[in-house]
Amino acid sequence: MPRPPQLSPAATSIKGSVYSSVLHRLAAYGGEVYPLHVGDTFLEPADGCRMEDLTVAAHPGMHRYAPPQGLPALVDAVVDRIRVRTGVPVERSNVFVAGGGTSGLASVVGAIVSPGDEVLILAPHWPLIEGHVKMAGGVPVDVPFFGVADSASTAAAVVEAALSPRTVALYVNTPSNPTGRVIPRAWLEALVALARRHDLWLLFDEVYEDYVYRGEHVPGLSLAPERSFAVHSFSKAYGMAGNRIGYVAGPAAAIAEALKISTHTVYAAPTAAQLAALRILEGAGDAWIARTRDAYRSLGEASADRLGVPRPEGSTFLFLDVAPHLDARGLDGFLEDAADRGLLLSPGPSFGPCPTHARICYTSAPPDVVLRGVEVLASLLGK
Amino acid sequence: MPRPPQLSPAATSIKGSVYSSVLHRLAAYGGEVYPLHVGDTFLEPADGCRMEDLTVAAHPGMHRYAPPQGLPALVDAVVDRIRVRTGVPVERSNVFVAGGGTSGLASVVGAIVSPGDEVLILAPHWPLIEGHVKMAGGVPVDVPFFGVADSASTAAAVVEAALSPRTVALYVNTPSNPTGRVIPRAWLEALVALARRHDLWLLFDEVYEDYVYRGEHVPGLSLAPERSFAVHSFSKAYGMAGNRIGYVAGPAAAIAEALKISTHTVYAAPTAAQLAALRILEGAGDAWIARTRDAYRSLGEASADRLGVPRPEGSTFLFLDVAPHLDARGLDGFLEDAADRGLLLSPGPSFGPCPTHARICYTSAPPDVVLRGVEVLASLLGK
Repeated sequence: MPRPPQLSPAATSIKGSVYSSVLHRLAAYGGEVYPLHVGDTFLEPADGCRMEDLTVAAHPGMHRYAPPQGLPALVDAVVDRIRVRTGVPVERSNVFVAGGGTSGLASVVGAIVSPGDEVLILAPHWPLIEGHVKMAGGVPVDVPFFGVADSASTAAAVVEAALSPRTVALYVNTPSNPTGRVIPRAWLEALVALARRHDLWLLFDEVYEDYVYRGEHVPGLSLAPERSFAVHSFSKAYGMAGNRIGYVAGPAAAIAEALKISTHTVYAAPTAAQLAALRILEGAGDAWIARTRDAYRSLGEASADRLGVPRPEGSTFLFLDVAPHLDARGLDGFLEDAADRGLLLSPGPSFGPCPTHARICYTSAPPDVVLRGVEVLASLLGK
Repeated sequence: MPRPPQLSPAATSIKGSVYSSVLHRLAAYGGEVYPLHVGDTFLEPADGCRMEDLTVAAHPGMHRYAPPQGLPALVDAVVDRIRVRTGVPVERSNVFVAGGGTSGLASVVGAIVSPGDEVLILAPHWPLIEGHVKMAGGVPVDVPFFGVADSASTAAAVVEAALSPRTVALYVNTPSNPTGRVIPRAWLEALVALARRHDLWLLFDEVYEDYVYRGEHVPGLSLAPERSFAVHSFSKAYGMAGNRIGYVAGPAAAIAEALKISTHTVYAAPTAAQLAALRILEGAGDAWIARTRDAYRSLGEASADRLGVPRPEGSTFLFLDVAPHLDARGLDGFLEDAADRGLLLSPGPSFGPCPTHARICYTSAPPDVVLRGVEVLASLLGK
């Protein structure tokens, strides 16, 4: 019993922020800062979809609660969007508007994971998914996948090898944060077949679905609607991460439970963010994405070329193994050397068993800043 | 193991929305609707603190992520606010900005409650707190308190009688939702002494702290800073429930754990909402509250007088025992009869062991609408 000052072991087992150890070094550095550790964008949202565009005159009561499932018009727009993109005839009961993709995933995990349950996580992976599983009392199991699997059959084989009698779900993020990879259709079909054989839930984290530069994004819901959750975000797609809004789709009975968890954590997504999201889905977002995708692709390819790594297939990240460039201080020393030159990187261990990797986000600052930061990194890598 | 289509028992044990069973009756009703079931306000936020007042020109990057703890300027303003109101010399490490009071409470409960732990909840209580405890695997224990305790010693006695070896925390909401009561200082001091004797955490839900009409609001943090969390909201205080923003204070080590839970559920509070909150704390909020408090008090007193119940001491609710007016259909029948006349009420069982009560929020609609809704209720009560 965690009486004061004791705390819940489930909470204390979750990782905290990983950036604080190097941020203080910036204080001693007077030059330009390259914040490539943050997964965000340098762009402002589409015209007409900014907070200043949402007026009380046009939207009386827009600072009051929205219903927990979402504003009815937005719920309907989300249903339409999912039908068009997946071909699955979802209904209102299959979706809810979430307080961001993070909140959506936390709600889904809370609905399906019980204490002791294991969740397989394709690694390297988005950092927060491990904590979601721990919050529900579950056990996150990293499955080294990106850079390991090289075909549909090996994709299924590496996941199959990690199964246990306690496995209840598989987390799949494509396009991938941090690797920039896009999982091919045949591989996804093999994972879905495995999930059906072993009766697993599938958690598809598709927040980068609009940022694919090579290959094809295949919506998970289209492959196995009976056992899949799909989590989407307006943050990554439309440059509004600070709005905290996304949406979730899945089987109706399971969505009802996830919505209860969402109601108990955020109550409802922010109302103004929902109004902005509705404008996005009503058409304002398409041109923004088309333009932004080209800009992101150019930045990703220029960064990859300069660093001598494969060009990204999707998302907004590059994930580099810097092992040959580490000294006795290990990765921390490398990150500190970078910070001493103004460059902030995300450490590999945040993403799973990756002790010698670092991640950059090539959209987190204006292009000229990103490219100067990449130059600093190239120089640290002797390139 | 909850394989598809099974779900987590922790999730399924949480109550869902309680309003849906009567909402469909409104479809058959063509007249004016009195939505007194919602805990919200008819007012728009203060001038200068609306979304339309927050421009990209003035705040470049305002649609990007904020840091998980909150925008530094807002964190500092929150620290100042708490110091002034409580006299406790809190530091930045004692606070974080939450994605609403609901999210703040969920984060605190996640940090201190382990599976099997019991949390005592002064009842009748805010509906969502039970679900928070269940999400952490804990056991919520209702302690009938408001309307039962009538002195400092009976306040402590009713809580003491509910203790078990598994009790880890006591939840105290004052001013109270749903009862409109404000817990006197001497009673709070008795509860604090009990918490110290039995080594319990204290969760002070103070989201209605600015709406006290009789008596005095005593900040919980001022009484027992070593074991208390205080949860505050801009929703209730400043008419911006849709913004999803609040803040939490408590012991630094515990706040660090609660912040990890918050990061894993909302990541950070919405950035625009944080900018609005900063304007509120920088001065725009005080005049709004002074004006609003008078309006709310008038409405509460007029409603109570018409319904023949004691005038409220605080918050924005009245909680009525309608037992003498129930027929064989019980409370559901009463709520249905009300809905058939356009009046929506919150059912007592949402708030604990209150099978014959109903709650109204007298600020959820413009004053004339509220007062006409109260007339409908008075007529249902034969008054």
